[in-house]
Amino acid sequence: MQRSDETSRRPEFRARYFVESSESIQKTAEVIAGEQSSGTFLDVPGETDELKQRARARVTRLQTLPPAMEPSLRSACVERRGHRGPYHRGEVEIAFPVDNVGANLPALLATVAGNLFELGDVTGLRLLDLDLPADYAARFAGSQFGVQGTRDKAGVHGRPLIGTIVKPSVGLTAAQTAALVDSLCAAGIDFIKDDELLVDPAYAPFEARLAAVMPVLHRHADRLGRMPMYAFNLSGSIDEMLRRHDQVHAAGGTCVMVSLNWAGFSGVEHLRRHSALPIHGHRNGWGALTRHPQLGFEFAAYQKLWRLAGVDQLHVGGLRSKFCESDDTVVQAARDCLAPFAGLPPVMPVFSSGQWAGHAPETFARVASTDLMHLAGGGIVSHPDGVAAGVASMREGWEAACAGVPLDDYAQERPALRAALRRFGSLA
Amino acid sequence: MQRSDETSRRPEFRARYFVESSESIQKTAEVIAGEQSSGTFLDVPGETDELKQRARARVTRLQTLPPAMEPSLRSACVERRGHRGPYHRGEVEIAFPVDNVGANLPALLATVAGNLFELGDVTGLRLLDLDLPADYAARFAGSQFGVQGTRDKAGVHGRPLIGTIVKPSVGLTAAQTAALVDSLCAAGIDFIKDDELLVDPAYAPFEARLAAVMPVLHRHADRLGRMPMYAFNLSGSIDEMLRRHDQVHAAGGTCVMVSLNWAGFSGVEHLRRHSALPIHGHRNGWGALTRHPQLGFEFAAYQKLWRLAGVDQLHVGGLRSKFCESDDTVVQAARDCLAPFAGLPPVMPVFSSGQWAGHAPETFARVASTDLMHLAGGGIVSHPDGVAAGVASMREGWEAACAGVPLDDYAQERPALRAALRRFGSLA
Repeated sequence: MQRSDETSRRPEFRARYFVESSESIQKTAEVIAGEQSSGTFLDVPGETDELKQRARARVTRLQTLPPAMEPSLRSACVERRGHRGPYHRGEVEIAFPVDNVGANLPALLATVAGNLFELGDVTGLRLLDLDLPADYAARFAGSQFGVQGTRDKAGVHGRPLIGTIVKPSVGLTAAQTAALVDSLCAAGIDFIKDDELLVDPAYAPFEARLAAVMPVLHRHADRLGRMPMYAFNLSGSIDEMLRRHDQVHAAGGTCVMVSLNWAGFSGVEHLRRHSALPIHGHRNGWGALTRHPQLGFEFAAYQKLWRLAGVDQLHVGGLRSKFCESDDTVVQAARDCLAPFAGLPPVMPVFSSGQWAGHAPETFARVASTDLMHLAGGGIVSHPDGVAAGVASMREGWEAACAGVPLDDYAQERPALRAALRRFGSLA
Repeated sequence: MQRSDETSRRPEFRARYFVESSESIQKTAEVIAGEQSSGTFLDVPGETDELKQRARARVTRLQTLPPAMEPSLRSACVERRGHRGPYHRGEVEIAFPVDNVGANLPALLATVAGNLFELGDVTGLRLLDLDLPADYAARFAGSQFGVQGTRDKAGVHGRPLIGTIVKPSVGLTAAQTAALVDSLCAAGIDFIKDDELLVDPAYAPFEARLAAVMPVLHRHADRLGRMPMYAFNLSGSIDEMLRRHDQVHAAGGTCVMVSLNWAGFSGVEHLRRHSALPIHGHRNGWGALTRHPQLGFEFAAYQKLWRLAGVDQLHVGGLRSKFCESDDTVVQAARDCLAPFAGLPPVMPVFSSGQWAGHAPETFARVASTDLMHLAGGGIVSHPDGVAAGVASMREGWEAACAGVPLDDYAQERPALRAALRRFGSLA
């Protein structure tokens, strides 16, 4: 079913939702459009036709789906009414006037992902996707480096960036971190990141880690002709993030990392406006926003919001990872990051969690791109022959994947990959 | 069952979770403690005893609950293993070293609410509560005004602040907004807020609204001997928020409002450090974080995190509201805001959504306090006798509640309350 109530020429952006409700999808869609623009639960005297014309959201598409007999999520409101089902389901697209929001990320979120999750009749609501006109999207900070800028800074082209996370995640001293980085760089790694738990611990302050790590990176950069990219986790207060960014930049570093959901849209966009470096976006907490299929966010929408804010690299999980998401979800997330969006550049999908060389062939086959970052934590630092062999095994896994050679064959003459297959094979 | 593996004297903070898992609760708790500190999915060479001693989190309490036969949330990880149940359930408390995190909100969130929602064995995880030592909590910005400071700025003592939301939420011009504010102030309202959707629309820019509204507030302040508190929604970029704060402050305004989940912890804490005014915390998007009972956040934990960031007023929903939360949940949320927490002041619970005078008696009876803000949108502006009667009815409802007089009796001689009962009575 297709609807278009108005032919207004005002600029609009659109949000698409899965909706489940004790009321009809038609009525629920109208309630959402009202609540998220100029309406409320009662008729409001001031909502004139003229005001509606400039401010009211409208339902632009509506597709009903088979109803459920039990609600996906409980609602005290529905229960008070003694409603016994059915729970109508559908997909709904709503168009909002750009003029209501402007280039304001918190206001955009309050509009497309605000109180509507809590509406009383609603027993399921998920933001599936967003669509913004390019000239509207251009008013946000937006990704500055994306795939191409990340590759240029890292000096890695034509293959994925092979990376790792400093492990143990927390607890290492600055000197211990630098020693680990040294061995990773010696092994030819492309990318290293701090764990999301690690920023500025008492026993390894940010500045001490930076001071210990950067000379190591420079030494290897001189040798390699490219500086291994290190994503320093600078998450913290606004002042700390800017100061740490400047310290990283002044020291010659090439990447900073931030916990997106907790620094927040205002925090991340501010960092982006200030930043001379690619921003590695860590999505920790994402599970709370996405894990129930009838609640929260689909990654398609989530990644667009963070591309507006300005991330350049974004975590997508990993195939057969230690996390809960299905491989299909992970692959789709990577494709989302690489897909065009309103004139913004594609961003690097970051594969991480329980990864090792054995994941390369299927990752390549399913994403159909080498524009990605493949991070192995334990898969590198716990390689039985050491980190050098761990990095080599990852590189060899991707060589095999890109060449279309089975890993076992490719491993015949390559002891690092062979040892990885022997040690980690049961994990794939 | 009580456990305490170590007698370490290092300072710690604690997080309490509901956990559901395909593995035993004991094992899952250890995995969470490991993942969220110095462990990973494989043994890591560098995790020495000395490192564990300084950085490893520990399970400090564990209570098993009856298991479920079906998982609350699906996990591809669990399904790959062909696990058929049971799904173990329990409550777990984990103690984290303060030294890992420091006074860093994004890092605190990454620790207590990061990747653990996505752990593969986990089929349900909810952050129930937090406990911080007072000297650790004191290192965060923290609420600056709270209940007392809000009352002082508003000049309202001994009863709730009666408030409303500008409606229509969006679409009014600056002059229309000022006219509405004028009539609300003439009616003696204590508090007015922008809708969370409204910040800086093209047809009513923030500065124009401020310029139109402030003279109205001053005029009534001269008359009333107190300035009605207006929470200007300044959500936006960091620079915009600080600039708007300064504009509100310079113009003599007494409150600013921010969309917490989208400005983010870094954004809100930065605003707090800068702010000379109480911060009205709007939790739009909260539904996505809390609505599934085995996922996300309990409000008890959520409100503590925002008190650390520095909000002074925090939305809690409303009794029999248009939203999905049960009355019990709403009442508990209000009590949480008013409860002591690590030396931080209590903050104002803000009751809102589908409210009118009829909600006063039960709200008072159940919260057992008048330290709250009671906001009626439609319940004031859609009062059949106009906004003046709408405000009067709210005040009268609370007078009756505090005096222990039934509303119907109290309404006999009070036409505003009587008309409200007649018009809105079916909504309670």
